[in-house]
Amino acid sequence: MTGFTTDAFGRIVGANQVLTDPDLMRGYLADWTGRRTGAADAVVRPRTTAEVSAVVAECARTGVAVVVQGGNTGLVGGSVPEVAGGPVVVLSTARMTDVEAVDPVEMCVGVQAGATVASIAAAAAAAGTRFAIDLASRDSATAGGIVATSAGGIHVVRHGGTRAQVLGIEAVRADGRVLRRWSPLRKDNVGYDLPGLLAGSEGTLAVITGVLFAVVDQPGHTAAAVVGIDTADEVFTLIRQIRRAGLVIEAVELMTRAGVALVVEAGARPALAGSSGYQVLLEVSGADPVQRLAAVLADSGVADAVVDEGPARPLWELRERHTETIAAASTTVPVKLDVTIRRRDLDAFLADLDELIASLPYPCRLVVFGHAADGNLHVNLLDVPVEQQAEVAHRVLERVVAREGSVSAEHGIGRDKREWLSVVRDEVDVATMRAVKQAWDPDGRLNPGVLFPDAPD
Amino acid sequence: MTGFTTDAFGRIVGANQVLTDPDLMRGYLADWTGRRTGAADAVVRPRTTAEVSAVVAECARTGVAVVVQGGNTGLVGGSVPEVAGGPVVVLSTARMTDVEAVDPVEMCVGVQAGATVASIAAAAAAAGTRFAIDLASRDSATAGGIVATSAGGIHVVRHGGTRAQVLGIEAVRADGRVLRRWSPLRKDNVGYDLPGLLAGSEGTLAVITGVLFAVVDQPGHTAAAVVGIDTADEVFTLIRQIRRAGLVIEAVELMTRAGVALVVEAGARPALAGSSGYQVLLEVSGADPVQRLAAVLADSGVADAVVDEGPARPLWELRERHTETIAAASTTVPVKLDVTIRRRDLDAFLADLDELIASLPYPCRLVVFGHAADGNLHVNLLDVPVEQQAEVAHRVLERVVAREGSVSAEHGIGRDKREWLSVVRDEVDVATMRAVKQAWDPDGRLNPGVLFPDAPD
Ligand SMILES: Cc1cc2nc3c(=O)[nH]c(=O)nc-3n(C[C@H](O)[C@H](O)[C@H](O)COP(=O)(O)OP(=O)(O)OC[C@H]3O[C@@H](n4cnc5c(N)ncnc54)[C@H](O)[C@@H]3O)c2cc1C
Ligand SMILES: Cc1cc2nc3c(=O)[nH]c(=O)nc-3n(C[C@H](O)[C@H](O)[C@H](O)COP(=O)(O)OP(=O)(O)OC[C@H]3O[C@@H](n4cnc5c(N)ncnc54)[C@H](O)[C@@H]3O)c2cc1C
Repeated sequence: MTGFTTDAFGRIVGANQVLTDPDLMRGYLADWTGRRTGAADAVVRPRTTAEVSAVVAECARTGVAVVVQGGNTGLVGGSVPEVAGGPVVVLSTARMTDVEAVDPVEMCVGVQAGATVASIAAAAAAAGTRFAIDLASRDSATAGGIVATSAGGIHVVRHGGTRAQVLGIEAVRADGRVLRRWSPLRKDNVGYDLPGLLAGSEGTLAVITGVLFAVVDQPGHTAAAVVGIDTADEVFTLIRQIRRAGLVIEAVELMTRAGVALVVEAGARPALAGSSGYQVLLEVSGADPVQRLAAVLADSGVADAVVDEGPARPLWELRERHTETIAAASTTVPVKLDVTIRRRDLDAFLADLDELIASLPYPCRLVVFGHAADGNLHVNLLDVPVEQQAEVAHRVLERVVAREGSVSAEHGIGRDKREWLSVVRDEVDVATMRAVKQAWDPDGRLNPGVLFPDAPD
Repeated sequence: MTGFTTDAFGRIVGANQVLTDPDLMRGYLADWTGRRTGAADAVVRPRTTAEVSAVVAECARTGVAVVVQGGNTGLVGGSVPEVAGGPVVVLSTARMTDVEAVDPVEMCVGVQAGATVASIAAAAAAAGTRFAIDLASRDSATAGGIVATSAGGIHVVRHGGTRAQVLGIEAVRADGRVLRRWSPLRKDNVGYDLPGLLAGSEGTLAVITGVLFAVVDQPGHTAAAVVGIDTADEVFTLIRQIRRAGLVIEAVELMTRAGVALVVEAGARPALAGSSGYQVLLEVSGADPVQRLAAVLADSGVADAVVDEGPARPLWELRERHTETIAAASTTVPVKLDVTIRRRDLDAFLADLDELIASLPYPCRLVVFGHAADGNLHVNLLDVPVEQQAEVAHRVLERVVAREGSVSAEHGIGRDKREWLSVVRDEVDVATMRAVKQAWDPDGRLNPGVLFPDAPD
C-alpha cells in the first residue's frame, strides 16, 4: 500500500486509529488458536458507520482488500488475512461498541457491530429480558462476528442460532454504500431476506456495522440436572419425555466419561457417583421445574441423576471447564473440530472416533462434548504431534462426511475449511454461492480467501 | 409461442399435461381473489424434478418466461401471469404431490413442491409429530408456495414462520440446473443460507421442486381461552404473564367487537357475555394448562374470560369463520390487507383506521383480526365500491408506512404491492435485491413483474 492510502484512512478515522507498526498490528494478525498468522498493510479502526463507509469506499477506489475483524475469537481463520496477496487492510470493529437501550415493548436492542455478546447480554438482563445467544467467548465475540458466523451456543435448542435473533441490519457494501433494514417487526415479508443472508456470510458479502437483535423473555423458574446415560441417543428420548411433561428445554449439553474425568481431576466437583459412558447436563424451565424434572427422570428409569435449582452453577461448571482443561491437559495445541451428526448416527460416529484414535501410531486422547440436542459435537484430540494435526483433522472430517454430517456446525468455513466446500455442497450450489458473492462484491475485495478456495473450482 | 415449443414441452411431460385450450387454462390464469387474471401460452404440469428441469431449460433455450404456480391461494397476484408481455408458460406443481414418510428420529419430512399443507400436516400427525405451519388455506396451499412466500399462520409465535421450518431444499435454477441441499441437520454453517434466501423469494429466483421440512413435537396438554380486553396492547402483558406462569404460548389471535358480532350473527356461538372492544383467543400448552391458565387470568384481573381444554374447537370457530363470513357479508369483494404494526402503536393504528373509515364518503365496514403476538393484523374493508378499492387500500398502507409498519406481514409483494417496494426499502437495499435477482436469473425469466416493478427504479 502506498503512503497515500494510509494517509487517506487517517483522514477518515484519525491517524492514531490507523496502525501500521508491526508491534501494534501483531494482535490483529494472529487468530485465537494461534495457528494462523497473516500480514496486512494497516489495521484501520473506525468508530462510526460513516467512517466504515468511507474506509471501504477508499479501498474500492484504490483496489485494496478488506478483512473484517470483530473479537477475533473465530475458530476457522476467517478474521485474519493471509500472508501473501495484494494490498490488504484489517478493518477492526473494536471501537464500535455502542449498545442502545433495550426496547422492552418491541423486545429488541440495537447495537454497533463491535459490541460484545457479554455487553449485549448485560443490557438485556438489566431490562428484565434475555439475549438468546450465549457462548463461552462472550467477553470478546462481537455482534458483527456472531452474525457473520451465525454463531450457535448453548441455547440454540430453545431459541435458534444467531440468524434467528436478527431483526434488522446495517451493513456497508463493497463499494461503500450503506444498506439499512432496521425494524423491530416480527413479520415483514417484503423482498429477499438480506439480513438472513448476511448471517453466516463470514464477512464476504458486506461489512456489518450494526445489528437490531431480538431479545426474549427471561425463563421463569428453571431447574438443571446432570444425568448419566449409556448411549448418546438416549438424549433424544429424554428430551421428548421432558417436553411431554410440560417443561421447556433450555439447554442440553453432552459430556463423556473421559471429559468429566479430566475436568474433575482439574478440580471440578463431580455431579454423579456412577461412571456412565455419558453425562448430560439439562436445563429446563416451566412450572415447578425441580419437582417435575425429578419426576420425569424417575419415571424414565434413569439410574444416576442429580437435579438442582437453576441456573445451578456447580453443574454448569462441569461443562464450562472443558475448554480450558483440555487446553491445559494436552501436551500439544489440541485439535478442535465442530461437527453435526445425524441423531441416529451419533453413537456410531462416536464409535468411529474411538476406532480412529485406536488406530493412530502416536498418543492421542479424545474428548467430545457438545450441544447434544442439535447433534452438535465438539471433537477435541489431545496430545497429537503438531505435524500430524492437519492429517488427523482431515480423517475426522472424512468420517463426518461419510455419515452425511456437517464439517462445520457452528464455526463456519473461514479459511481453514474452504477445501471442504465443494465436497459437501454440490456443483450448482457452489456456483450459485459464487454468483451471490459476485453480486455483492464483484471485485472480490471483501475477505478474499474466506469461504471459497481462491481459484474457482 | 411457436407450436414447436409446445411440442417440446409435450415431449417432456406428455402432451396431455400441456394445456393450451383457454377453457382448461382458465383456472390457472385467475388468482384466488378473482381480482387478477392473465394470459399464458401454455400451462405445463410436470410430475418430477427432472421434468421441471427440462421444461425450464427449454424455456431458457427459447426465451420463454416461467410463472410458477402452486395452490394458487396467494393473495398478492404472484401466481398468475400478466395480460401482456412476451411468451410465457405457467409451470404448475399440481402433480408434484409426493410426501415421503416422516422420519421420527431426525424429525423431518421430505415433500415435493406441490404437496399441500394439509397433506404434510396429516403425515406429520400420523407419525406422532406436528407440522408447525398451519393456515386457513391448508387444503390448497403447497409446500413450494409456503416456502416461496415464507408463509406465516397461527403458530408463528411458537415455531416461527415457514423459513424456520426449512431444513433442505431442491430447486431448479433459471437455466434448468438442479440445486439440492437436503440434510436434516439442525446446524450446518457451510456457506450462504440459500434455502433461507429462497424462502420468501416468491418464485423470482428458482423453481422449488422439493422441500425437507422440520417437524416438531406435538404439544402435550393444551388449553384455550377467549379473553375480553379493552385495548389491543393488553395482549402483550397477558402473554408475558402466561409465560411467567410456566406455560408455552401456542397461538394468540385478536378479534374485534365488530368481527365477533358478524360471526355470531352468521351462527357461531359467542364465547363471552360482555362486549369488550377486543377478544383474544389464546392457546397454551404445559403442565395442568387449564387450571394454570385460569389462575393467570384471574390474577391478572381480566373481567371476562372463558377457558377450555384445547384444542377447543368451538372457541377456534369464532376466529376461523372470520374469512368466509366477511366475504359473505360484504356487498362487494372485501378489500384485504395484511400488515404488521409495532406493538406500541397497535391501538393508535386501530384508531387511525377508525378515523379513515369515518372520513370515507361511501359506506365501509371495518373488520380487523390477526396474529396479535406478531403485531400482524388482517385489515378487511367491507362494502367498498369496486372503483374505490385501490385508492382506499393505498390509504390504509400509507398509514401503515407512516407508523413504520409492514405493508406485507405474511403474503409477500407479488404483483399487487410491487410499487411499495422502494417506498419501504432503501435504495441500496433495492439495488442489492436486484443484484441478487440478476445473479440467480440473469435474463429475468422467472416470475417477471413479481417483486420488482418492471422498470428499474
Ligand atoms: C472459547 C471459545 C468458545 C466458543 N464457543 C462458540 C460456540 O459455542 N458457538 C459458536 O458458534 N462459536 C463459538 N466460538 C467461536 C467464535 O466465538 C464465534 O465464531 C464468534 O461468532 C466470532 O465472533 P468474533 O466477533 O470474535 O468474530 P471474528 O473472529 O473477529 O470474525 C469471525 C468471522 O466473522 C467476520 N466478521 C467479524 N465481524 C464482522 C463484521 N462486523 N462484518 C462482517 N464480517 C465480520 C470475520 O471476517 C470472520 O470471517 C467460540 C470461540 C472461543 C474462542
Ligand atoms: C383463505 C386463505 C387463508 C390464508 N391464510 C394465510 C395465512 O394465515 N398466512 C399466510 O402467510 N398466508 C395465508 N394465505 C395466503 C396463501 O395461502 C399463502 O401465500 C400460501 O403460501 C400460498 O401457497 P400456494 O401454494 O397457494 O402458492 P401460489 O398462490 O400458487 O403462489 C404464491 C407465490 O409463490 C410462488 N410459488 C408457488 N410455488 C412455487 C414453487 N414451487 N417454486 C417457486 N415459487 C413458487 C408463486 O409464483 C407466487 O409468487 C391465505 C390464503 C387464503 C386463500
